[in-house]
Amino acid sequence: MFLKKFLIIAWLFQVQSTIALESDETNNVNTCNLPQSLIKEIDSYEPFVHAIINETLYGSFKGVTWNELAYFVDTFGPRFTGTTVLERSIDYVLNKSMEFGLENVHGESVSVPHWIRGKESATLLKPRHKNIALLGLGTSVGTPPQGITAKVIVVDSFQELEDRKHEVPGKIVVFNEKYISYGETVKYRSKGATEASKYGAVAALIRSVTPYSLYTPHTGMQRYDENVTKIPVACITAEDASLFRRMSDRGTVLEINLKMQAKNLPNKVSRNVIAELKGSETPEKVVVISGHIDSWDVGQGAMDDGGGAFISWQALKLLKHLNYRPRRTNLINYNYRMIMWTGEEVGIVGANYYIKNHRSEDKNLQFVLESDSGTFMPLGFQVTGTEKVKCILERIMKLFSIVGNLKVRSPSEGPDIASWVNAGVPGGSFRSQDETYFNYHHTNADTMLVENPEALDKGTALFAALSYVLAELSVDLPHQK
Amino acid sequence: MFLKKFLIIAWLFQVQSTIALESDETNNVNTCNLPQSLIKEIDSYEPFVHAIINETLYGSFKGVTWNELAYFVDTFGPRFTGTTVLERSIDYVLNKSMEFGLENVHGESVSVPHWIRGKESATLLKPRHKNIALLGLGTSVGTPPQGITAKVIVVDSFQELEDRKHEVPGKIVVFNEKYISYGETVKYRSKGATEASKYGAVAALIRSVTPYSLYTPHTGMQRYDENVTKIPVACITAEDASLFRRMSDRGTVLEINLKMQAKNLPNKVSRNVIAELKGSETPEKVVVISGHIDSWDVGQGAMDDGGGAFISWQALKLLKHLNYRPRRTNLINYNYRMIMWTGEEVGIVGANYYIKNHRSEDKNLQFVLESDSGTFMPLGFQVTGTEKVKCILERIMKLFSIVGNLKVRSPSEGPDIASWVNAGVPGGSFRSQDETYFNYHHTNADTMLVENPEALDKGTALFAALSYVLAELSVDLPHQK
Repeated sequence: MFLKKFLIIAWLFQVQSTIALESDETNNVNTCNLPQSLIKEIDSYEPFVHAIINETLYGSFKGVTWNELAYFVDTFGPRFTGTTVLERSIDYVLNKSMEFGLENVHGESVSVPHWIRGKESATLLKPRHKNIALLGLGTSVGTPPQGITAKVIVVDSFQELEDRKHEVPGKIVVFNEKYISYGETVKYRSKGATEASKYGAVAALIRSVTPYSLYTPHTGMQRYDENVTKIPVACITAEDASLFRRMSDRGTVLEINLKMQAKNLPNKVSRNVIAELKGSETPEKVVVISGHIDSWDVGQGAMDDGGGAFISWQALKLLKHLNYRPRRTNLINYNYRMIMWTGEEVGIVGANYYIKNHRSEDKNLQFVLESDSGTFMPLGFQVTGTEKVKCILERIMKLFSIVGNLKVRSPSEGPDIASWVNAGVPGGSFRSQDETYFNYHHTNADTMLVENPEALDKGTALFAALSYVLAELSVDLPHQK
Repeated sequence: MFLKKFLIIAWLFQVQSTIALESDETNNVNTCNLPQSLIKEIDSYEPFVHAIINETLYGSFKGVTWNELAYFVDTFGPRFTGTTVLERSIDYVLNKSMEFGLENVHGESVSVPHWIRGKESATLLKPRHKNIALLGLGTSVGTPPQGITAKVIVVDSFQELEDRKHEVPGKIVVFNEKYISYGETVKYRSKGATEASKYGAVAALIRSVTPYSLYTPHTGMQRYDENVTKIPVACITAEDASLFRRMSDRGTVLEINLKMQAKNLPNKVSRNVIAELKGSETPEKVVVISGHIDSWDVGQGAMDDGGGAFISWQALKLLKHLNYRPRRTNLINYNYRMIMWTGEEVGIVGANYYIKNHRSEDKNLQFVLESDSGTFMPLGFQVTGTEKVKCILERIMKLFSIVGNLKVRSPSEGPDIASWVNAGVPGGSFRSQDETYFNYHHTNADTMLVENPEALDKGTALFAALSYVLAELSVDLPHQK
């Protein structure tokens, strides 16, 4: 229970561990003492790695990830948990995986929350009439049909809310927090309604968590603490939040009408998508490559996390295409398992359920990989594991130099593999040049326009190549704990 | 008539004369042969210029332009031609100008077009249901109440439209043109409906003219050629235009329902806003500083052109505050005239009417200044005039070095002063670091978030200082023709 709560918080915050990254730069290959035989073995995979990369960047897989992802997200659109569209998109991946000859292709059912947005609108009534763009937040309750009409208090922080708590009862609280980083700032989205409700607010409107806005509302999850009255909550644009702050600083009285049809409905069933390539020697041993198939209900979920799911899928297809299934004759011989997680956006639901239900297999996991921070030009991997694991990964990165100067940093950041990583399984998340990621994260602008074919090819190549080397490796990667 | 047509075209295209600028860089002070006495005179204004700049950047005017602009655009919101809000905002400027002791404060009436947007919506019906963000274009006709439902043809250029003209009848044409520059690309917005209608289209949807989108529709003017059937036309987002292109390239049949209540109503009366500081010697001689007060009906018109209008206004107030009215005892002694133009967005209507009605005063114009390309950090001025005029301006720029390394380039780009400049009056437009301008141009994101207090102060300082030096100058600037 604690673990689950911790994971949810970790996921809500999706901590950008920039500071951790920087301090970890010293953790490089120079401090490693890998046996010469192991270094030699890793280096011996270079021709295979180059073949994988060449096939993706210049061969028959060139541009394929982008094209297939585009077809997928254009055809299905957003794939929100609880919708039939998500299930149809899952069927599509299952069917195509079977057509492609992937193995052990199946969905694993999981009960998922079913929140619906419904119609929503907000209007500034005083001091002048203005439509307010907004996106309700996941798990938010709705308003009565006529909406909630109330005066407004604008605060820039939880501290200011606390300082002015006597002004809050009966009001709509607008949070106009400054964007520092996603990890720092997302607490206003995830906890804003709870904090406002504690002091008697009737609704909360949060400035979207983004470094750049073109009048762009963002959505995302929030959670109510137990024992607080559940009040409607939505994100508004940076433009409107700052407008309301300026107006209110001038002593102007603001009044807003907020209408939201949002509802929490009974759970539905969704499925994690699994496809494998099986090794012949020790078929219970596994390297996992994964991303999530569900998305928010706006945009197309192209970057979050169509890209991550598709480089995982394409990597598996590529290994199949090249016939690079684990085939070494020593005892270690791993399966590749591609997983597309369901219900990530609504609480890492698919992954946590899967991992809990496959706990007994943890010991057989060589490495778990995830991509859920964007599929831009690769920078390397965020890894959690023993020093030996990181040293091995760093040595492997050298084989990928034609793709870029890739670095291994710590810790792993992938929300879906977090339950594994926290249980000691060595894991890594794909790290790429995501400078603009939070401009369109959870918005209508998360579409194919933000995906780049070359970057996707490189992502696919790295996922395939890293999985290959880890599966071939003559040693089991040590687990922690 | 030809001139008017030319001006409208020039304004619709708002040509980005980057190429002209570059080639004009050779036109620098080294080729100038100003009399030493004139150089000496110009340089002698340095203490006054520095006093103006200091008062704005570090003195009592520091931050004032931003604050006053914020109050203005926050209070009135968008100021679209034909609305009572625009007229109330004009009254506000007139009243405040009088309160501040500016002279000859008055509005000059002008008949302006009155287009209303009304409700508008578009829905992709096939191959799947999707709401399409859009903004109808100025002068567009509406649709019947039930909307127009039609199949879609997507083209990337007028050439492709021509090549596939047999496919066009009865369809909605989606233009998915590539953004090259605003000047190059805006022809699709201004002429798209006309070109589509020529081949029998029932409506046109244009990819918004922008280098960067966060699912951001842009509006703007368009015009129908005579003799074409007027069909509804709107801009959609880059995201949707490219989506429709990909879908249609895959052979998918697209169907869209477009509803627009847009209407062209009888003209209304608006006003150009004039305020002056009068010189005592030759009160008929004038230096004009200007921007336009009207905006599109979305966003706040903070950058387009609240900033330009307000640096003009603040410059005049600053000169009044410093008591730097023209006061030289030689015969040349100019007035400062601040003009906030009305009806710019709907066809440069206020400026063209004013200039036509004040034609006889052209000979008394020392220089006409405009800011309508954004009020970012200053780069200098775009100037149209004789070589002597440019040489004088270049020499004056040296006085402004504490504000930046300012350059004089050609030609002038201001739409509102174009009628003057084309008649030979020397004129200049403010040039600043507008890299992101077209991200939010004519959108809901044109708000105070894009204005910077220091940049506005610098704009005010430059407008005041340049006006001051030109008004004090002992020579009349030569007119062309």
